[in-house]
Amino acid sequence: MLKNTLFFEKTSLEKIDAYARRINDEQENGDVGYYHLHKMGATLIEESVEFISQKTYVKKIILVGMGGSSCGVKALKDLLFDEKDNDRELLILDNTSSHSVSKILKQIKLEESLFIITSKTGSTVEVISLFKLIIAYFNLNLNELHKYFVFITDENSNLHKEGENLRIKCFFIPQNVGGRFSVLSAAGIVPLCFCGYNVKALLDGAEACFEDFFSHKNDVILQKAYHYCTHKNANINVLFSYSDAFKGFNEWYIQLIAESLGKKQGYKRLGLTPIALIGARDQHSFLQLIMDGPKNKTITFLKIKDSQKAPFIPDIHFKFLDSLSNGVNLHELLNAQCDATMHALCAENLSVDVIELERLDAWHCGYLMYYYELFTSACGLMLGINTYDQPGVEVGKLILKNLLRK
Amino acid sequence: MLKNTLFFEKTSLEKIDAYARRINDEQENGDVGYYHLHKMGATLIEESVEFISQKTYVKKIILVGMGGSSCGVKALKDLLFDEKDNDRELLILDNTSSHSVSKILKQIKLEESLFIITSKTGSTVEVISLFKLIIAYFNLNLNELHKYFVFITDENSNLHKEGENLRIKCFFIPQNVGGRFSVLSAAGIVPLCFCGYNVKALLDGAEACFEDFFSHKNDVILQKAYHYCTHKNANINVLFSYSDAFKGFNEWYIQLIAESLGKKQGYKRLGLTPIALIGARDQHSFLQLIMDGPKNKTITFLKIKDSQKAPFIPDIHFKFLDSLSNGVNLHELLNAQCDATMHALCAENLSVDVIELERLDAWHCGYLMYYYELFTSACGLMLGINTYDQPGVEVGKLILKNLLRK
Repeated sequence: MLKNTLFFEKTSLEKIDAYARRINDEQENGDVGYYHLHKMGATLIEESVEFISQKTYVKKIILVGMGGSSCGVKALKDLLFDEKDNDRELLILDNTSSHSVSKILKQIKLEESLFIITSKTGSTVEVISLFKLIIAYFNLNLNELHKYFVFITDENSNLHKEGENLRIKCFFIPQNVGGRFSVLSAAGIVPLCFCGYNVKALLDGAEACFEDFFSHKNDVILQKAYHYCTHKNANINVLFSYSDAFKGFNEWYIQLIAESLGKKQGYKRLGLTPIALIGARDQHSFLQLIMDGPKNKTITFLKIKDSQKAPFIPDIHFKFLDSLSNGVNLHELLNAQCDATMHALCAENLSVDVIELERLDAWHCGYLMYYYELFTSACGLMLGINTYDQPGVEVGKLILKNLLRK
Repeated sequence: MLKNTLFFEKTSLEKIDAYARRINDEQENGDVGYYHLHKMGATLIEESVEFISQKTYVKKIILVGMGGSSCGVKALKDLLFDEKDNDRELLILDNTSSHSVSKILKQIKLEESLFIITSKTGSTVEVISLFKLIIAYFNLNLNELHKYFVFITDENSNLHKEGENLRIKCFFIPQNVGGRFSVLSAAGIVPLCFCGYNVKALLDGAEACFEDFFSHKNDVILQKAYHYCTHKNANINVLFSYSDAFKGFNEWYIQLIAESLGKKQGYKRLGLTPIALIGARDQHSFLQLIMDGPKNKTITFLKIKDSQKAPFIPDIHFKFLDSLSNGVNLHELLNAQCDATMHALCAENLSVDVIELERLDAWHCGYLMYYYELFTSACGLMLGINTYDQPGVEVGKLILKNLLRK
């Protein structure tokens, strides 16, 4: 189970109910596709498993994708590090940074590799450029590309058309599912299936969150969203995640919140500013600013209850060094650091909540990601903006095109 | 050279001069030690080289340290990935996260390893706990620890005393150099020397920045600090770094700004909130919020001019895919994306500046890190706070001690 405890005052049920109805309408009317992805996974899993079962020689899957086309997969790769049922390695190319590109290409042997090119629009300049670089690096002939590549894109996009032209297998992202909400669509399911992650449990976790929210009317997400959207002085939202396994998830969270909620509304500029930290590490970095700096931040602590796999700090006594942590389980030390920081911030009267996962597995990850998607939709409704577009980044793309034409 | 161009209005020289005098006083009076580290490196380099030259069997250096004890080294490891003159691998343990700990320990063979335990105070609970875990993992006898460990700490700290007790070699961080300003002290120099990085060039770069600022009176740092500290509506400072090589540097920047400048001053709470992004990747994530969200952010673009080592995007023409980036050098594409984003943000009237490094080498990294240290000191003076302490994190440490005692 996922337990979310709010350490700030809840609002009246009446206010919350109005938003509960609106998000329910949004979910039911079908314009926003991500709400229902967990119900559509079975066919996709079957199709992915069938495809990859014919490619037993593949040892490395290289995913090429920007933003929503890779963020969710990267998050789950980090989270589910010891929960795979095959030993295919997943590598991710998510930038046009030349040193990462060459570092990844150097460790690949063509004959054991499968490249996934993901672009929802089918025209992302970084992705198309990297696709061409890979072709040239391995000196591939265009009529053999179908052996090494898979495309994931919208139906009828240019990438889909090119895929048909080149006889490359295409998987489709539903038109009404935005990139940053696409982790449970083909964008996430296909690469995760290929690499042996438990995608079924991931979708089940998402479904459990859907049920808790829409059927069992658990209002914790709405309460939190309402608090975030009405406390305008605290418009920086810190996610303090206690485990290195959350590194990719932190990036996914930042994309989801920043790109969904940073919007113009007439002359007004709205948005919540997400910041994501890793504990205990960042207690030695950002924490001082939260404690003593401007009170413009809310803080969510994210932790994992289960400590079974962690070692115990041995009972070694030194003449001059502290023995306070002797005999403590390393993961319990981490959680104690989380609790201590949480208490310290509560004492400063900051808005704090804690999300505790029972353990780190695909089911809990599915629940957690769906939780944050719902949370984002709720904030969007409360701010009165379009949560699902990203008009602000188009200007830069046009300027880039002009620069490249020169 | 490092070129910093400000795209916002400069302030009068008179105002700037007052702060120039104060920072000059601070530098000259000697209470703040980091200002002069670049002049003290020669002996330290000699001592480090002599020590490691007796340990030719060492193939992996494992640095254990939190916050300032590892951040700077991690930054330089990422930045100088292809600029080492030996093939010793540097691994960093900077968290009590059990999966990272076991992942790193699993890849180590004791007989070819040297562990560096860094703690300025000599009593960091995470570091002492990890030290004990390593001892137990390799089943070490206390009287053989001196073969495998080196300590870096303040003189007369408990870690130093224990080092003497166990005959472990100790290197010292000057008392008047704070953890987050310690990258050019033993905390950085020793591990970097051991692994064959060009530490001499790093210190020379820092010295060049010192000279530009204090001798040649280049006022760009003061102008930028003044703008940041007086535009209180824009108290979120985004560093948008265009290359994956800046990942560790981004974390170092966040620690430096957040922990130095987030301070109480009587009843007032002051501070700048640092956010660090990687381009072009985060154009698909955080950029939308900067473009359309609240105008509470300044943006610094950080880029590398030299594109010599990057491949060219091949001139492959597809029926349905764009050819606009064909023939473009991959690093030049990245820089064009940086320029396009910069122009788009300028058009929104946001405060923008650009730092361009001529190329990525130790000299430029030394210049860049010293630039940001000076910038932080200048901001601290302008905000009227103590830049060099971190009182806010002590409460959490006390609570943790109480939790562990139970």
